[in-house]
Amino acid sequence: MRENINGPVKITEKTRPDDLVTNYDQLVQKNIVGQIKHAFPDDLILAEEDEIKTAFSASIPSLWILDPIDGTTNFIVQRDKFAVMLAYYEYGVGKFGIILDVMKERLYWSDEAAAYCNDRLLKKKDFNLHYSLIGVNAYMYRTNTGGLLDLSFQTLGVRTSGSAGISYTDLFEGKLMGYFSNLQPWDYAAGSIIASQLGFVTKSLDGGEPTFSGREMIYTVPKSLQNEIQNYLKSSKIE
Amino acid sequence: MRENINGPVKITEKTRPDDLVTNYDQLVQKNIVGQIKHAFPDDLILAEEDEIKTAFSASIPSLWILDPIDGTTNFIVQRDKFAVMLAYYEYGVGKFGIILDVMKERLYWSDEAAAYCNDRLLKKKDFNLHYSLIGVNAYMYRTNTGGLLDLSFQTLGVRTSGSAGISYTDLFEGKLMGYFSNLQPWDYAAGSIIASQLGFVTKSLDGGEPTFSGREMIYTVPKSLQNEIQNYLKSSKIE
Repeated sequence: MRENINGPVKITEKTRPDDLVTNYDQLVQKNIVGQIKHAFPDDLILAEEDEIKTAFSASIPSLWILDPIDGTTNFIVQRDKFAVMLAYYEYGVGKFGIILDVMKERLYWSDEAAAYCNDRLLKKKDFNLHYSLIGVNAYMYRTNTGGLLDLSFQTLGVRTSGSAGISYTDLFEGKLMGYFSNLQPWDYAAGSIIASQLGFVTKSLDGGEPTFSGREMIYTVPKSLQNEIQNYLKSSKIE
Repeated sequence: MRENINGPVKITEKTRPDDLVTNYDQLVQKNIVGQIKHAFPDDLILAEEDEIKTAFSASIPSLWILDPIDGTTNFIVQRDKFAVMLAYYEYGVGKFGIILDVMKERLYWSDEAAAYCNDRLLKKKDFNLHYSLIGVNAYMYRTNTGGLLDLSFQTLGVRTSGSAGISYTDLFEGKLMGYFSNLQPWDYAAGSIIASQLGFVTKSLDGGEPTFSGREMIYTVPKSLQNEIQNYLKSSKIE
């Protein structure tokens, strides 16, 4: 992708004029799916493009979840700020996650003990809600979905990057305290696994566990702040 | 700043809890103002910090406009995505602008013929409103100030970076089609001069000329799209 970053891209609309897919999404998916199937022929795969849509289940011994290009609009318009994301689950438990910030050549990844950026060990950061920035979905922010706008007033402000993957890398680097968006499983699988090694938890907007089925409002925040954040969200909804 | 990027920062609140200044804003301003005064003792200066607030006027032979750190909250929280911005005017006419993306070590600058990133000549890009992204002030976006939310529906979406300077560099690189925010003169002086070498115009939200006095709602967009954009903003306001 980097070699051809200024070359032409074939763009197709999916569900809406702003829901786009390119020949590169399909090429990257085909390449990675092919390698997984070659190395682990019995493993199952849930992927964003085409019809590789295994339903997530705790009964599956080995499940890969792939987003070949996260931030496709950024890829098309900016040729920057997009990511390749891959997660691996055994019996419903996340074992490792991988997020590649393609243009920065930074590979964020975790094993079952720690998280890294390339060879650099990532460290947990102590966050204070009131001196933090959060990454948000613009629609949820402006409509105060689930109390997100009200929560944002407790912070120093919001940022929108147009890519879940890039927002997750900002969490890993301590640049964002939390990330709130309306996501498919392949948008949060890798991010939530890596983030868990850095003290974050990933929940649905009402505080429950993500279902990994279809689009769902999700947040990833420091475990130490989850109750405080959930209380702000809840108190806003009651009003 | 880069050498001390992970060191302590002394933070002071200005007008609000989220309007912050650091010892680095003051240090950078003192350094640059000192150099200008030494080299050009008769020139006047309008700068963000302290009391160096020459009123912009077309009668001033030589006026410098300085923002020592744009994106101070990003600097404090992220230690990334902030800029140093400097503009130079003769009798009210912008002669050159400079924006330094400190952490990327990218110096964007213009003379009276062209615009550059470090030694790389920047090129004009042809934008289509409906296949573009825009940088916005989050408050103006969510409250539809001047019709900005309605305009955003004509594009592929919005991005918020927390720094006018960083948003301007995304314009120069063709990553954003336009930038819409509520700005002080030092927030848009350098950006508007550099952008003018790449086919952009900078206007107040009602389509008039920026006044360079106090905070003002401003946009920078391609000259070729200005009428179309202004019409969308106006039609929204009439509703």
